[in-house]
Order: sequence, then C-alpha cells, then structure tokens
Amino acid sequence: MNMDVCLVGDRGIIENKSDASQIYNKGFFGEPQHGGTLLLDFFELVYLLEFRKVNVVDGKGRAYGLEELINYAHKRIKSFEIKYIVYRDMRSRGFVLKKGDEEIHFMVFPRGAVPTKTPAKYWLIAMSERQIFDYAQMYRCAERAHELKKEVLIGTVDEESDLTYYIMRIASMHGNFSEQIEGKITGIFLEDRVLIFDELHSNQLYQSGFYGHMVGTRLQLSLIEACYLAEKNVLELIDARTQKTMDVENFRRKCRKIQKDFDARFQVYKELKSKKLIVKTGFKYGTHFRAYEGNPDQTHAKYLVHAVPSNYKGIWPDISGAVRLAHGVKKSIIFAGVGDERVMYLSLERIRP
Amino acid sequence: MNMDVCLVGDRGIIENKSDASQIYNKGFFGEPQHGGTLLLDFFELVYLLEFRKVNVVDGKGRAYGLEELINYAHKRIKSFEIKYIVYRDMRSRGFVLKKGDEEIHFMVFPRGAVPTKTPAKYWLIAMSERQIFDYAQMYRCAERAHELKKEVLIGTVDEESDLTYYIMRIASMHGNFSEQIEGKITGIFLEDRVLIFDELHSNQLYQSGFYGHMVGTRLQLSLIEACYLAEKNVLELIDARTQKTMDVENFRRKCRKIQKDFDARFQVYKELKSKKLIVKTGFKYGTHFRAYEGNPDQTHAKYLVHAVPSNYKGIWPDISGAVRLAHGVKKSIIFAGVGDERVMYLSLERIRP
Repeated sequence: MNMDVCLVGDRGIIENKSDASQIYNKGFFGEPQHGGTLLLDFFELVYLLEFRKVNVVDGKGRAYGLEELINYAHKRIKSFEIKYIVYRDMRSRGFVLKKGDEEIHFMVFPRGAVPTKTPAKYWLIAMSERQIFDYAQMYRCAERAHELKKEVLIGTVDEESDLTYYIMRIASMHGNFSEQIEGKITGIFLEDRVLIFDELHSNQLYQSGFYGHMVGTRLQLSLIEACYLAEKNVLELIDARTQKTMDVENFRRKCRKIQKDFDARFQVYKELKSKKLIVKTGFKYGTHFRAYEGNPDQTHAKYLVHAVPSNYKGIWPDISGAVRLAHGVKKSIIFAGVGDERVMYLSLERIRP
Repeated sequence: MNMDVCLVGDRGIIENKSDASQIYNKGFFGEPQHGGTLLLDFFELVYLLEFRKVNVVDGKGRAYGLEELINYAHKRIKSFEIKYIVYRDMRSRGFVLKKGDEEIHFMVFPRGAVPTKTPAKYWLIAMSERQIFDYAQMYRCAERAHELKKEVLIGTVDEESDLTYYIMRIASMHGNFSEQIEGKITGIFLEDRVLIFDELHSNQLYQSGFYGHMVGTRLQLSLIEACYLAEKNVLELIDARTQKTMDVENFRRKCRKIQKDFDARFQVYKELKSKKLIVKTGFKYGTHFRAYEGNPDQTHAKYLVHAVPSNYKGIWPDISGAVRLAHGVKKSIIFAGVGDERVMYLSLERIRP
C-alpha cells in the first residue's frame, strides 16, 4: 500500500519518518525537515501521485485523484501545466529537479547525483511555445548562469505538449582573419546596392576582404559593406542618378530608408568584423548574416547571426525555426542583441538532455 | 571587330542584315524585323555589351561604356539592376530568355530550343530580397502558369547579388488516411490545452486519429484538435476553473484570445483533414502544421504548412528561411492562403535551374 502525503496549502507533508526518508532517498524528492518529516512541492506531489508512489490526502483523510490535484495546482501556480510537463519529462529522463524561482523554474542535478553534494548542471526554464521570447530577460538569465558557470536549459512545450530543449549560452565569437584594405576605390550607388566597375579594384577588394560578389568583371557590394568601406575611407560613393559623390552620412540615410533596421545590422556587422570574422549575408538562411572564422572559399560559415534590438520580444516558433534551420546546416545560430553601448551574443542550441 | 548596335530610346537596332542574323542565330537575341534588321531590348543590349559581342553607339556614333549603359537602363527600367542580374545568370546557364510583362519578367526557353518553335519552360520573376512577398500576386502568377501548364521560377537576388531560385506551384495535397471517430469523451480545458484523463478514451482517440500527445496515461490535445473534435460532437469540454461545460462557440472565443490567428489556422486544419491528411503541429519547424499522408508512426510528414491570410504580405528572408528549413528536413513547404471562401495552397521549392 502507498504511503500518505497530507496536502496543506501549497505543500505536501509526509509525517511518517520512515516514509519520508524512503521518498527522499529514492530520487531526492522533497525537503527533509528537522524531526524527520518531509515537505514536498506541487511538482513533486503531482509526479509522485501520477507514478503511484504516494496517496495525496487532505486534512480529513480524503484522497485526491490526479485530475483533481492537477486542477488544484493549476489554480495556485502560474503556468503549472507547462512547468509540470517539463518537470515530468526531465524526471523521467532520470534527472533530479528542485524548484527554482520566477525566472529560473528548476535546478537540474546530474543523473545519480546527490543534490546537497553536487552542484546543479542546468538552470531550467519551462516555456509554452505561445509565450514571448523576451531577449533582455533571456540574456539576463544566461548572464547570471554564465557567471556561476551554469548552463541554461529551456524546455519549450508545443501545443501538442511535445517538448523541445534548448541550451542557451552567452556566445563568444572569434575569427582569425586579418584584413588589410587600402586605396581609394569608386563605387556607384544603384538602387539598393553598390557597383564597382573597375576590374582591378574589384578583384583587389574581393581578395583582400571577401567583400561583395563578383558578377563578371565587376563587384557588387551590399549596402552594409559599402557603408563599412566608405567609413574606412576606402570607398568613394557616387549616386548613379545624380552622378555626384555622396558622403557617408548621406549614404547612411539612404540605407536606412531602404533597410529600416540598417543601423542595428550595421553595428553588428562592425562588431563581428572587429572580432576578425568574415561576415556575409545570411539571406539564404532567413537570417541577417553568416560569419566565417577564416577564408570563405575554404571553410564553411560557422555562425548564423541575427541582429535584434536588445529589448526584442519575439515569438517562439520564429526562434525554434531559426535554431532548427541552423542545426540542419551545422551552424550555430546567434541572436545579437543591439543595445545603446554594446552588442550581446546569445546562442541557442537544440539538445536532447 | 564587333558589330555596332544603335541605341534609339528604349531599344537597340542592328541595321546591318548579316550582323542582325548572326546575333539572332547565336542565342536568339532580339526580335527580327521585316527587312532583316533586329530590335534588341535593354537586357539583351547590356548582356551583349558586357560579353563584348557588340558595340552600343548613339545616333552620332558615340560608343557607350558598360557603366554608362547600365546607368542609362537603370533610369528607364524599374528594378533594372535586379532583373539584369537574374537575366545574366540564366543566360550564362544557357537558357534563352525573352522579355515578359510587369508581373512575369521573362519567358525562359529550354537550353538549345528555338523560341519561335518551342514553348517556354519557365515564367521567370526577378525579385530583390528586399521586395515584398505578396501572396495574392504570387498565387495569381502561379494560377496563370498552372492553367497554361507552365512553371513559375522566381530568381531572388540577395544584398550581395547572390541568386537563389524557387519553383512556385499551385500545390494539390492528398493523404490516404480515413478515420472513424465516435463516442463522447470529456476533456478538461486547462490554460492553453485540453486534457483527457480517462486512459481508455485517451488511447482510443490517439489510435483512431493520432490526436494529441500521450503524457503518461492521459492525452493532451491542442486547442485546434479539441475544437475540431468538439465540432464533431466527439468531445465535451469542461473549463478547469469553473468545472462547467463549455459549448463550442464559447471555446472558440477562448482559443481566439490565446491564438490571434486561430480561425485561419483552424480553417486550414479542417481543410487538410478533409483531404485525408493527418495534421500535427509544426512548431519544431517554425511553422503551423506538419502533415502526413498516412500513419505518423510509420511515415515522415511530407508537408510543412503555414497558414497565412490570402492577402498576406511577407518579407523574402522569412520565406527563404522557411523553404531552406523544409528542404533540410526533406519536406515540402506549403503556404496556405486563407480567403473568405477557400484555402489556397502554394508551394515553393528551391532549385538550381
């Protein structure tokens, strides 16, 4: 016969000391109290009831059914159902979980570890696919975890209650490509790109920094590349319509008109370049940039980088799609958050814990 | 020495008959005129000048350089640069192209074919990644093409002037799964999903139509599945908070609050079900649905389906990302346009022409 747990408010209590130690020792459920009793939280209670390890009774000895207990928990704990699906799945995978706080829902301890002796392996966040992906909040979690050498695990629950897990990390990105560009090259601003007609200059620019794309004997630069080179005083811009030279500020204004988030993207581009990466468009992958650690003719791009404002609030299906795509092409997806003073890099990787 | 083409307004003319027939016969450039002269459009002119087959001169015999001619064309033809990049690439691949209209930019004839004797293989649309993906317009093109047994090819030009081609088709989707569902099952509406606690009913529902997801002995249905089953009178819904039954209309109102585009998605879901497909969430793929032709335990999903309003206007990077992802997991991506009276299916597939 199963042992009884008495439900009191938000907790369950096992008064019987031998029952208490048995439950605690098999999976480290609950918090042992002075005097030998055990306190269980709602996730533990529902889990133990579902797997028929305990009976849950109220003060009068009346037993709760699973449906009734889930309903009860649902009324008391925000997003209980979502959190419980994740809790249940991780427990079933053999991990030991302890309740966390509002932001980090659970601490996850390695399989077989004793939670009082071993540090947590993951900080776990349970989210519904319908919840918002709040960049600032996510970055804050990742940063807290990074400082304490933890990893953040996000368990997302889709509308059919299927689970996908992501490891979220502060990303540090570095390439090994040093470029030397100099000279004074003329580029024609045409519609939404910049053309260099001089064959020698075109080749030179492509070979020194992999700028643009050779079309025949001329080079086609993206707006971002052109802006970067113009700021470096390597490129002089001429407007095709007026045949007059344009200064960088004037050109940037045009770029902003063509590409609403030009400034944010440009900031990320410059940041990545300063990290010795080679940065090209990520259009084919539905993202802003792909970045190479070295010569793009010899290596594959390691990163896909998406520039977002640092207060970005997105929807999870967009995030999961981007991660899935990057995974499929063996690249890391990085969400670059653009703040006033810095660019932050957050990576998400799909895993099976 | 190259032959001369005289630029007059929007056309080039080759007056010399032997020059004219030489140019026409090598690649079917231009439109032969009575009297043996040849008219060339701007795409042909720039292409022939770039590949040094002709000199382009004005009425006074002054020669145009490539840069000058591109500038000239750019001022006269909307999005000339984008269209020319696509034209040039397809020509370099050996296809013969003829100018089309505002919507279909070029007719593409098979390699080696004589355009006056062979029907066009593709209708080609050239687009910048910055242009809008206008569902209604795209569907109209695909429909026109479908009626005439053509295929629409879209050449998208990214900001670095790199090209990606898509075949766009009216999709016809059919599965072979017939389901029989009956009975009266009770489901609890909890937060944003519906739970069935009865183990027998849960198994029955899962096995008869692959509804929901078994979590232990209970079944978790998505809102869409629950709504579908409630409309079919198979499911009776109870609100977990009030413990009262909910009618379908009331439930749909709640669904709309949770999922803004619930009605459009639900319409697509029902349509796909009526085509004997098994429809599950596409969350992991960043899309609305994945659809199986038969038993999902034995086959892979063939389609990823994204529901959009029939007047949807999206951005190309989102489209290219979705196509890329589907390609990577060997599924077809279908954009289901939801109109007042029908659901339209448009497929996009990446190809190398």
